[in-house]
Amino acid sequence: MAVTDPIQRLIRELSRLPGIGQKTATRLAFHVLRSPAQQARDLAAALIEVKDKIRLCSVCMNLTETDPCALCQDPSRDPHLLCVIAQPPDLLAIERTSSFRGRYHVLHGVLSPLDGIGPDDLRLRELLTRLQGEEPEPIEEVIVATSPNVEGEATAMYVARMLKPLGLRVTRIASGLPIGGDLEYADGVTIARALEVRRDM
Amino acid sequence: MAVTDPIQRLIRELSRLPGIGQKTATRLAFHVLRSPAQQARDLAAALIEVKDKIRLCSVCMNLTETDPCALCQDPSRDPHLLCVIAQPPDLLAIERTSSFRGRYHVLHGVLSPLDGIGPDDLRLRELLTRLQGEEPEPIEEVIVATSPNVEGEATAMYVARMLKPLGLRVTRIASGLPIGGDLEYADGVTIARALEVRRDM
Repeated sequence: MAVTDPIQRLIRELSRLPGIGQKTATRLAFHVLRSPAQQARDLAAALIEVKDKIRLCSVCMNLTETDPCALCQDPSRDPHLLCVIAQPPDLLAIERTSSFRGRYHVLHGVLSPLDGIGPDDLRLRELLTRLQGEEPEPIEEVIVATSPNVEGEATAMYVARMLKPLGLRVTRIASGLPIGGDLEYADGVTIARALEVRRDM
Repeated sequence: MAVTDPIQRLIRELSRLPGIGQKTATRLAFHVLRSPAQQARDLAAALIEVKDKIRLCSVCMNLTETDPCALCQDPSRDPHLLCVIAQPPDLLAIERTSSFRGRYHVLHGVLSPLDGIGPDDLRLRELLTRLQGEEPEPIEEVIVATSPNVEGEATAMYVARMLKPLGLRVTRIASGLPIGGDLEYADGVTIARALEVRRDM
């Protein structure tokens, strides 16, 4: 009877979040108890708002408040260049760099036979519709920007094979040593790849 | 314009929690977006409920839904034994062991001159009232169970000095090697303390 029900409940709900175990959830719950009530109310409101207002953009499948999303509606984005990514956070990661001015397509997953995720579970049909539907977009190049791990590479391969017959240029983001990284501490697979795809200077 | 406002707001609110940076907050926000709406609503409700329903017990200063708290009302707890702790989570940690059957007093902090926390910021007056107020509790021993770090030790020393004139037995939880610990990997201060406070066998 040491923990009262509302605290227990908050700990349980917090520990459902990924990477938050019992101990962290307890720490967070007691932080909420110590901090101003307004802060807890703001977080609660943000949680409800995000589930109420956010849906998928019918064009690019990104999360959005408006449909089509602001990115798909933005006339300054290059309509000839399409970047295919696995998940919405990947889009954020690319946008933060300000180095890509084309449009996006979010697959919402990667191929992972062990987890039972096949091509039908990804937003591939929607991608094909954009390329060869009734009103195809003027896309000339598709950059496949899934992560360079096993599932990401397999997904990239699948997308490339699916799009090649359409006569598009299909490219893949480069793999190699991260900028500012240290050869001494880089993993062997990355070094091998960096050597393999070396460029003339 | 890649992140819509509600997502941005949720990330900002989440990153106010301790130990949750921008990256973790983003990961959590996108998890909330992927998971069922009911889960987000449950967490929001738990956050609001905990701030609405939880207050301090007027006796022991622990967080509670009822006043006095269930622990203070429990007739099976030994009224002669009082355990002084720094924060509510410490109470949970002790209760989980089921090895203490007395009552508690929560100081809500430890002395920390560098952070500007002095004796007046702790619930020391309430502790004195329990011991020598108009209706003093029949407390015979006070166990000071603040953590064995600099602030915790200083606080324990302060509490002991404050209570000694009252003719009570004031004790301190033991420090030493953790059970199951390895002498080889224990830190020097702990080993020195364990040697210093060694017991006859």
